[in-house]
Amino acid sequence: MIKVGIVGGTGYTGVELLRLLAAHPNVALQVITSRADAGTPVNQMFPSLRGYVDIPFTHPDQANLESCDVVFFATPNGIAMQQTRQLLDAGVKVIDLAADFRIKDVAEWEKWYGMTHACPDLVAEAVYGLPEINREQIKTARLIANPGCYPTAVQLGFIPLLEAGVIEVGGLIADAKSGVSGAGRKAEIPALFSEAGDNFKAYGVAGHRHLPEIKQGLSNVVGNPVGLTFVPHLTPMIRGIHATLYGKLTRDVDLQALFETRYANEPFVDVMPSGSHPETRSVRGANRCRIAIHRPQGGDTVVVLSVIDNLVKGAAGQAVQNMNILFGIDESTALNNVPLLP
Amino acid sequence: MIKVGIVGGTGYTGVELLRLLAAHPNVALQVITSRADAGTPVNQMFPSLRGYVDIPFTHPDQANLESCDVVFFATPNGIAMQQTRQLLDAGVKVIDLAADFRIKDVAEWEKWYGMTHACPDLVAEAVYGLPEINREQIKTARLIANPGCYPTAVQLGFIPLLEAGVIEVGGLIADAKSGVSGAGRKAEIPALFSEAGDNFKAYGVAGHRHLPEIKQGLSNVVGNPVGLTFVPHLTPMIRGIHATLYGKLTRDVDLQALFETRYANEPFVDVMPSGSHPETRSVRGANRCRIAIHRPQGGDTVVVLSVIDNLVKGAAGQAVQNMNILFGIDESTALNNVPLLP
Amino acid sequence: MIKVGIVGGTGYTGVELLRLLAAHPNVALQVITSRADAGTPVNQMFPSLRGYVDIPFTHPDQANLESCDVVFFATPNGIAMQQTRQLLDAGVKVIDLAADFRIKDVAEWEKWYGMTHACPDLVAEAVYGLPEINREQIKTARLIANPGCYPTAVQLGFIPLLEAGVIEVGGLIADAKSGVSGAGRKAEIPALFSEAGDNFKAYGVAGHRHLPEIKQGLSNVVGNPVGLTFVPHLTPMIRGIHATLYGKLTRDVDLQALFETRYANEPFVDVMPSGSHPETRSVRGANRCRIAIHRPQGGDTVVVLSVIDNLVKGAAGQAVQNMNILFGIDESTALNNVPLLP
Amino acid sequence: MIKVGIVGGTGYTGVELLRLLAAHPNVALQVITSRADAGTPVNQMFPSLRGYVDIPFTHPDQANLESCDVVFFATPNGIAMQQTRQLLDAGVKVIDLAADFRIKDVAEWEKWYGMTHACPDLVAEAVYGLPEINREQIKTARLIANPGCYPTAVQLGFIPLLEAGVIEVGGLIADAKSGVSGAGRKAEIPALFSEAGDNFKAYGVAGHRHLPEIKQGLSNVVGNPVGLTFVPHLTPMIRGIHATLYGKLTRDVDLQALFETRYANEPFVDVMPSGSHPETRSVRGANRCRIAIHRPQGGDTVVVLSVIDNLVKGAAGQAVQNMNILFGIDESTALNNVPLLP
Repeated sequence: MIKVGIVGGTGYTGVELLRLLAAHPNVALQVITSRADAGTPVNQMFPSLRGYVDIPFTHPDQANLESCDVVFFATPNGIAMQQTRQLLDAGVKVIDLAADFRIKDVAEWEKWYGMTHACPDLVAEAVYGLPEINREQIKTARLIANPGCYPTAVQLGFIPLLEAGVIEVGGLIADAKSGVSGAGRKAEIPALFSEAGDNFKAYGVAGHRHLPEIKQGLSNVVGNPVGLTFVPHLTPMIRGIHATLYGKLTRDVDLQALFETRYANEPFVDVMPSGSHPETRSVRGANRCRIAIHRPQGGDTVVVLSVIDNLVKGAAGQAVQNMNILFGIDESTALNNVPLLP
Repeated sequence: MIKVGIVGGTGYTGVELLRLLAAHPNVALQVITSRADAGTPVNQMFPSLRGYVDIPFTHPDQANLESCDVVFFATPNGIAMQQTRQLLDAGVKVIDLAADFRIKDVAEWEKWYGMTHACPDLVAEAVYGLPEINREQIKTARLIANPGCYPTAVQLGFIPLLEAGVIEVGGLIADAKSGVSGAGRKAEIPALFSEAGDNFKAYGVAGHRHLPEIKQGLSNVVGNPVGLTFVPHLTPMIRGIHATLYGKLTRDVDLQALFETRYANEPFVDVMPSGSHPETRSVRGANRCRIAIHRPQGGDTVVVLSVIDNLVKGAAGQAVQNMNILFGIDESTALNNVPLLP
Repeated sequence: MIKVGIVGGTGYTGVELLRLLAAHPNVALQVITSRADAGTPVNQMFPSLRGYVDIPFTHPDQANLESCDVVFFATPNGIAMQQTRQLLDAGVKVIDLAADFRIKDVAEWEKWYGMTHACPDLVAEAVYGLPEINREQIKTARLIANPGCYPTAVQLGFIPLLEAGVIEVGGLIADAKSGVSGAGRKAEIPALFSEAGDNFKAYGVAGHRHLPEIKQGLSNVVGNPVGLTFVPHLTPMIRGIHATLYGKLTRDVDLQALFETRYANEPFVDVMPSGSHPETRSVRGANRCRIAIHRPQGGDTVVVLSVIDNLVKGAAGQAVQNMNILFGIDESTALNNVPLLP
Repeated sequence: MIKVGIVGGTGYTGVELLRLLAAHPNVALQVITSRADAGTPVNQMFPSLRGYVDIPFTHPDQANLESCDVVFFATPNGIAMQQTRQLLDAGVKVIDLAADFRIKDVAEWEKWYGMTHACPDLVAEAVYGLPEINREQIKTARLIANPGCYPTAVQLGFIPLLEAGVIEVGGLIADAKSGVSGAGRKAEIPALFSEAGDNFKAYGVAGHRHLPEIKQGLSNVVGNPVGLTFVPHLTPMIRGIHATLYGKLTRDVDLQALFETRYANEPFVDVMPSGSHPETRSVRGANRCRIAIHRPQGGDTVVVLSVIDNLVKGAAGQAVQNMNILFGIDESTALNNVPLLP
């Protein structure tokens, strides 16, 4: 059994980790920490877990995380970097669901996240946990930077095109739409039901923190810097990201075959039949990315539609997928639940 | 392996049955019928099933249902009664998710459902599939009438009070609220997003088909006819029923202990701590009923709050629970998934 | 022109007051205060007001409210009572949309609201602003306690029955459902989209602050204390209250005629045809209460369905109605906009 | 008083026309037709209109539309073209809210709409009713083709850039998101609450009927054919369109000033301050387009955000605006209601 600890279990990625890990046959959940809610039974805060998770939140100071095999950080940005070195030194694997180790360029990270990084050397060591790109490195990693939700949906949609070199890399457009759970379980007015409900808006057009993460990933694929316009939007649903991606083709190619071949052996990427329009609900609660490729009116613009559940393939599910790879067990363990529709 | 057939797989109870059965280790899904969509791959209509269900819909005439061990009817009312005798004669167990076999008083049934019953003798034989009341009879049944969604939530909330004889049986009130999926996957204007969204209304106050079903069940518990006012409402969410039940206490009793004792051994009824307010999302996607009991201001009115997922404990999940009981396997098999929250 | 001031304009009742007053031909809006947002243009916080309201929020200390003819308090409970005496002394009329002056029994008020009342004598003077009951007193009032949202919907539904003395007064039940805007524009986790969305729950079953207000109003009608069980619920929509009211008839009566007669001259109460099920969206954005009366199966339980927009007839619209009465202008002025459907 | 007739009043554009016209001081509503619902009071189908519209639907054969001054067609495509000539011959002005007269290239229209056009000569005569482009022609028109919802939002966002010649015209991208009311009040499964709710998807990527309409409008502005990729999406809200528009700048320009100047005298186009993110709810129920312009990271991609209420500025409101222009009355008459927020 893998002894698992979770730091910061009161947000949506935390409860989602618990939902997935509660059904994981190889996992023994040791501890979930929360500074503010120490002592509260987890299933009092999240009654959905009644019957599945029976422990209380533990104060970080009492957590004894060093005795775990792996620790997930489901914390705000800037927390994991304070505690990771100590855990690694104790032989504990670390999977950070926040952004502390995602951006290799530390100066860039510090600019976007507005703080000084506590351990730049560990940033260098960390493996970016997108298995469809980095599966081999993940197997032997000590520290995994679990990708952001938008970056997962956008990268999986662009990767086959960029690897094949069939689109212009200077003018990529990613128009992405997220459900409100992407904003986290924080008491903030814009995320209120009466603000976000029955409403649609863009945000962060001038610059969103996921922009450098996406650009880094895509540039790595190309081997050169890409040009990307990224516009995130908030849509009145709870879970789900829909990325609509635009690129200009530089040569003729069988796009459907390109994608099907690229993802033929990927358990969690589903290339849908030609002409499809994937819906976010088709992946609700599941660790899947569904993708469809279009070339409207046979022109030179390719349109890729990519959907994920932001809390699963975009966060907790991908983290469990990384854990499975890391511990050499079947990558799909505890990740094979059928999406909830309707 | 239990060989399973499903008649009528294009509605919400059908796709929900498929979701649950796809993960059932003892089930071999043989056939799913649809007259209108024969030949269409099931997962083309429901892309959430891609990777889990790979067969097409079969025309009823080609279905060979007699070779199954059990057949679920996820059809409109009036279909199952046409085909059940033939299946029973062939040794097939039948679980009807519609209302054909729920009401023992056939004349009453015909009044509410507006058609002549095709096989009143089988109505007499059928076992009402509420395991919390009829578990023993279910074990040996040939034909199970799976309860309605409202009747499940309302009966589970009233049963302990009525069994204990602590409330007046003449003036029961059930104020129930359902998500829109309860209306089925039918092209009807009142169920449109732009009609049901951001809106709340009662319906069927003069009389709803679940009224005689609930009265029958509660009267059986009491041994005498009960008086019940049942007011259903439509609320702008997809899944879930919340029943708010009112009764007048006839004597002092420890209500919390009464409920906890009654349901102590029930795997799918969760009596919440005193003072709780169960939320429908706490059972989303799960075969559970969560109940809380209140006695406002210490008066003589008891208020019971009872929530289920109408498509699971109120339909497909309960049907699988009945199948598990019927075939002598662990009652919780394939029904232990954690509710999806948020 | 009536010179109007608004204290506390950053919540939902504040922006709703602005929406209605911006179109009022007899109103000159003088000032809107906000301590936290002083200096911010109102229409920067609420872009829906661009082109209609061009002033900024004013700090309370600079507001010069004494120069107004009437001041609306759209503040949290406990604010209006601090400032009302000074305004009344200056000859300014006061309409409080919060609860400071609603409960005549000051000890009861202090128990439910958890604070000491600053001016019990003004509580005695205040007129409860439900025009359908108190129109004459409103005309000459200095201080109006604008009713709560639930109390408006519930009282308008019960009043005809209680005035006529046709139901038992000891066992009234009010099962009420509110949209999330009823919780206000406050950064609190339970009101987040991802918490309140696709979810339904009861709350405050043990006791809600609107209970004493409703009981006071109904008891005044009867002339004796009534017994009431009040269960509020949160439903995933933005605006709207649906109250489902239950009473036990003590004699036979033409219920439809009773209600139609009672409200024949009321501009903002619409008694719908027999058999109707009013929808909350049918009053969205409008100062109306629509009511339908049912007597299921001809039994002795009467069911009244009463819907309002909680922000209009349940708050800001009723406040403007009260202002219109107070200043002797047509009661419907600025309140005749057609509900927004869909 | 302008005598007004409406053909096809049972859809969302019909009820929205009624909402707006009921408050129009210069309009006398003569007749609303419906073949299926003749005889039914309009306010029985739409209780929101109780107290405002008291006439029943009239059968088309009894409608006597020739006695009107203007007739609005709120019908499916292909109806208006059957009746327009007769009305024009009788001296009646016609405003078609459907697509019959929007596309000048009749062969193109017939390809997209799958029918033969009944009166190509009237297509040639019809004026495209986008006042921000065609105000002068509208004044003297007999027949107005009211623009589609997507075309309104997209054209208003692109026009200033194209008129100024500051973007490449070959690679325009319009990523548009619509609320579900855009699908109309038709009983179709994809528009059900349980299908469209809590879900996001693209549709019609291969080709949507609004594509040729938008291309025609933009090409007219440029004087040459433009290249456009148009991807519509369905978002789980009732009203609203959000168009996110992308263009490649060909030279440096003060984009904010460009837009502010272009729309300085337009009563229904609001250019928001630099850096804004317009929300669809900021125009809910109102005849407005709000626009913001961005140039992310100072690159050469311009991003325009354009929001409208699809049923108002995208349909019924624009139709009333056109009527006002046509009859020489203040263009804002009956169109000045404040948006409903929240």
